[in-house]
Amino acid sequence: MFETAEIGHRIDKAGYEQEEPLLRVRLLNLQYALLRAKKFPVIIIIGGVDGAGKGETLHILHTWMDPRNILTTAFGEPSDEERDRPRMWRYWRALPPKGRIGILFGAWHTGPIQDRVMGSSDDADLFRATQRIVNHERMLVDEGALLLKFWFHLSKKAQKKRLHALEKDPQTRWRITETDWERFKHYDKFRAVSERALRDTSTGHAPWTIVDGTDPHFRYITVGRAIADALERRLADDTVPPVQPVPPPEPPADGRTLLSALDYSQKLDHKDYEKALEHEQGRLSLLTRHKKFTTRSVIAVFEGVDAAGKGGAIRRLVSGLDARRYSVIPIAAPTEEERAQPYLWRFWRHLPRLGRVTVFDRSWYGRVLVERVEGFCAEAEWMRAYGEINDFEEQLTEAGAILVKFWMTVTPAEQLARFQAREKSPFKNFKITPKDWRNREKAPLYDRAICDMIDQTNTRHAPWTIVPANDKHFARITVFQTVSCAIEEALGR
Amino acid sequence: MFETAEIGHRIDKAGYEQEEPLLRVRLLNLQYALLRAKKFPVIIIIGGVDGAGKGETLHILHTWMDPRNILTTAFGEPSDEERDRPRMWRYWRALPPKGRIGILFGAWHTGPIQDRVMGSSDDADLFRATQRIVNHERMLVDEGALLLKFWFHLSKKAQKKRLHALEKDPQTRWRITETDWERFKHYDKFRAVSERALRDTSTGHAPWTIVDGTDPHFRYITVGRAIADALERRLADDTVPPVQPVPPPEPPADGRTLLSALDYSQKLDHKDYEKALEHEQGRLSLLTRHKKFTTRSVIAVFEGVDAAGKGGAIRRLVSGLDARRYSVIPIAAPTEEERAQPYLWRFWRHLPRLGRVTVFDRSWYGRVLVERVEGFCAEAEWMRAYGEINDFEEQLTEAGAILVKFWMTVTPAEQLARFQAREKSPFKNFKITPKDWRNREKAPLYDRAICDMIDQTNTRHAPWTIVPANDKHFARITVFQTVSCAIEEALGR
Repeated sequence: MFETAEIGHRIDKAGYEQEEPLLRVRLLNLQYALLRAKKFPVIIIIGGVDGAGKGETLHILHTWMDPRNILTTAFGEPSDEERDRPRMWRYWRALPPKGRIGILFGAWHTGPIQDRVMGSSDDADLFRATQRIVNHERMLVDEGALLLKFWFHLSKKAQKKRLHALEKDPQTRWRITETDWERFKHYDKFRAVSERALRDTSTGHAPWTIVDGTDPHFRYITVGRAIADALERRLADDTVPPVQPVPPPEPPADGRTLLSALDYSQKLDHKDYEKALEHEQGRLSLLTRHKKFTTRSVIAVFEGVDAAGKGGAIRRLVSGLDARRYSVIPIAAPTEEERAQPYLWRFWRHLPRLGRVTVFDRSWYGRVLVERVEGFCAEAEWMRAYGEINDFEEQLTEAGAILVKFWMTVTPAEQLARFQAREKSPFKNFKITPKDWRNREKAPLYDRAICDMIDQTNTRHAPWTIVPANDKHFARITVFQTVSCAIEEALGR
Repeated sequence: MFETAEIGHRIDKAGYEQEEPLLRVRLLNLQYALLRAKKFPVIIIIGGVDGAGKGETLHILHTWMDPRNILTTAFGEPSDEERDRPRMWRYWRALPPKGRIGILFGAWHTGPIQDRVMGSSDDADLFRATQRIVNHERMLVDEGALLLKFWFHLSKKAQKKRLHALEKDPQTRWRITETDWERFKHYDKFRAVSERALRDTSTGHAPWTIVDGTDPHFRYITVGRAIADALERRLADDTVPPVQPVPPPEPPADGRTLLSALDYSQKLDHKDYEKALEHEQGRLSLLTRHKKFTTRSVIAVFEGVDAAGKGGAIRRLVSGLDARRYSVIPIAAPTEEERAQPYLWRFWRHLPRLGRVTVFDRSWYGRVLVERVEGFCAEAEWMRAYGEINDFEEQLTEAGAILVKFWMTVTPAEQLARFQAREKSPFKNFKITPKDWRNREKAPLYDRAICDMIDQTNTRHAPWTIVPANDKHFARITVFQTVSCAIEEALGR
């Protein structure tokens, strides 16, 4: 990985002074073209060893381009708000919207490499982390981002020389502390670990550019050219990305599906319901006040057919919770700011801190349901969404979230009855629109999408609960019990 | 303040059971009407003494209305990200957008009252804090919010009775700890301080409703009715708020203004500029790396006429800074999410943490410049904006920010020359649009707005620096020196 970066590169002053002004003008013009086109974001990652000129290069980029349209984030110690969420949360917060350049100074690679060097993780952990990074980067690229990754390298000899030189000069001596030499001791280990991590995360869609950090001129020109070339190519590229010819899963040959096999006759009479409701409210209330719950969170996802009673189930569920400690996030059409980001961004921004409960009334599954059926996204997009969603959910659960997902469904006859009742009720008729009737006609397409979704995303860490909801009482109690059982299991009670 | 709340109120079970279902339906319908109209946000503040049923009332509101459209935030210990910013930042984060109900559980009143009770502040501090609250609430109301404030009260006798009762019952004994009795000791002080704070912040536009917390039925019905009545009244109110007939400041009788009195002949030749630039970059770089700077931040605001060289000045200024520690926020038209909030919201969201620098390329002053001149807001709105902005900036500086504000200006002849040069340059012609020519025709209106702005907002803690920028060199060095001098003064160097 580092071979070419160690053969010794340099650009002399004359060469630099000739190229630099041209490169600046080129970069600045490309940056403005990007801003005007507003078609994709540019994400530049800067990583590498200490003293290889990362900071200086960042500075040069800010000088060459218009810093008003660069969003730079340097990742140091996470804040307490960040520590309470999946590791990737802080990086999602820093993503640039379409048309802007975002520079991540030390991004998602830093943690896994450091953990392995310091011995707090093993090879298997590192491998899992790099696989996650590969998936994450592929998702960003698939969502349209131009992703450029630069790794600044110094050979061991060059590093040693640099430390000695700084130490000798009275002007710079203060910059070298014990810590620097301490870190130098780990050079070989760091090199080995980062080499592996870089190789595993250097993919066709997001390769690393290794930059020899010895000579400032060389590294500035290398990075500047790489950015300009990539931006130019991408801005000129008017081709629509070819739709991957992945055939969507076929329905079962006998027509029997998860939905048709459901038992819709399950019921709970009023008296039993009232009793069960009170019991379940108390149970959930105690569980979420449990001491152990302060290091966990609950994310409950509600999806379902129209008029299946999602709203009612959510209202009952949260009635057992302390209103100070939960939020319900209703998902409607994305806002302008959300549309300028990868589609999962608008869910990341609502993730709860530890000790809290967040209920999503509709969710990221819109991607593989309404967006698939209505053609709001391409086939390739919803096909890859299954894997992206599984990755996302795995990150949630690893960070302590207890994830429960409900698909609430009623039979077509029951849905019809409820639609008609809504139309007649003066309090509920705003809840029914021509869109609902249209959706009903598309039921077969939706059924197929639902079954595919459950097959593809019913994972061990984030299982689906399909709730036959013809009987509202039964459905609501099922929801309660599922949530409480999941918490009990997670708290080991 | 608390007299009526201590005479003993209650609603019996029968009365409650009769009113409750009607009130629920009414509230739910009003909530949906609010959501559909999307014209204003509702902010409900819940404060008061321990054990007066605040939490239960919150819970009831969540049960009565649709919790999917209530944003509740309970304010406990601030996070580290919150501590690094003005006290009000966390409340701005929690504001509901138009059409939604936001419940703030313990809001901006809590801190000042507690500080005074615990003796960490004096009467003058409390008074300043309540005046700030009055201004803040007036701003919210003026921006269209429906603001409802409930204070839950228990008399000393009732509080004592409650603590004893809980302690006696084996089922509830665990709820009472030493801390509760400790707090009870402060009852009189707490009552006196909160009475004063409530009186000072109970204004015509945002009065407190004091709720006797003894009887649950009474408090639920009181709060529910108050919300329903206020919402109903406001939703029915189609009148456009009368424009306050405040005459805008008159121009001076002799026509001499801040702008016409400027000396535009100040210059710096190229050699002196290069030398000064290098010196100033180094100076600013050292200042922002100074140990003392970790408890401060810099907020630099750039405003100015078109083609005055704001962009160039900003680029030079940040070239002296560590790219990891500053952001430049270009202010364009507000996004959809920003339009659903008070106009200052979009600036609050970009405030830097301590130790950082944020440059605003255009700013909140748009309110009293372009929005005034182009008629994007009413006269009453920009007239009150001066005071709102002064309040805002005072909060910034109190929280450690060093605030510098630049008005960059060129003579009409110089502006014309720059416009023409831009039109000819292939790299810059996108920077000039018909709008720029139109703005130029409105110069007299803008001049008036600019002079008013400077007169109204040139405060001790946030002074304006007017930069005659006919000579770019002179302007850029002036900007540098102003920022560095402000930091030096703030760090006491």
